[in-house]
Amino acid sequence: MVSRTRFDDSDCPVARSVDAIGDWWSLLIVRDAFDGSRRFGEFQRSLGVAKNILTTRLRALVAGGVLASVPASDGSAYREYVLTPKGEALFPVIVALRQWGEQHFFTPGEPHSELVDRRAGHPLRPLEVHAEDGRRVTPGDTTVRKVPEE
Amino acid sequence: MVSRTRFDDSDCPVARSVDAIGDWWSLLIVRDAFDGSRRFGEFQRSLGVAKNILTTRLRALVAGGVLASVPASDGSAYREYVLTPKGEALFPVIVALRQWGEQHFFTPGEPHSELVDRRAGHPLRPLEVHAEDGRRVTPGDTTVRKVPEE
Repeated sequence: MVSRTRFDDSDCPVARSVDAIGDWWSLLIVRDAFDGSRRFGEFQRSLGVAKNILTTRLRALVAGGVLASVPASDGSAYREYVLTPKGEALFPVIVALRQWGEQHFFTPGEPHSELVDRRAGHPLRPLEVHAEDGRRVTPGDTTVRKVPEE
Repeated sequence: MVSRTRFDDSDCPVARSVDAIGDWWSLLIVRDAFDGSRRFGEFQRSLGVAKNILTTRLRALVAGGVLASVPASDGSAYREYVLTPKGEALFPVIVALRQWGEQHFFTPGEPHSELVDRRAGHPLRPLEVHAEDGRRVTPGDTTVRKVPEE
């Protein structure tokens, strides 16, 4: 392993999130969990990564409170990995990455997976960023400020 | 460098996005670009990473079309890094990570940075995921399906 730069003492929430996810592609484990994967073998088949690497990433996500390791739902000796409420809260992150990927990394007509609303069977709306009063904002409409200690 | 698992032949847009960003913390370079950083030294001071590592990451983001390297705005010999339209389209990803971080990695009253709307000076609304017809959807309301080749 190369030593990894850490940002968890940062006062920036983006940095702490990046640090908590750890390795970038751990988000693909989270994606698979949203898509219904629960068992080690399911994640392994989906991702095609080495077992020891997947084990490390799953442990890190459990340690970070994103996944919980629970007894198998069928009563067997397997463990299953399920999203915690904190993990479920990553849904907008996954949707945002999906929509960015759809826009920029596929040629027209190229096959791809898409996330659809079960009820209507249609793709979701593109995410929009809104101000408190409901106006849609662009990056240029926003600025970062420090919230001092209370 | 450890060899990195690649997902760029995946039919999943999340996987291609993850692959395009490359290293997870490259998103912090993108965050800094949204916050107004343009020069190598600005990114370096903000991130505190080794120069050779930052150089590699900036090059990868330029190669990936997320940043463009342009002559300095003051006419000096420096190069500056600016977000391309593809890079600007990462705004919802950064906002989603910021909001997740704010919710889960700070104790009440702990100082942190926040992204505010310039006009009103208030934090942005939490991102919401909506179906095409406007209904707000949770992960359980959605499913992944394959879009076949046209």
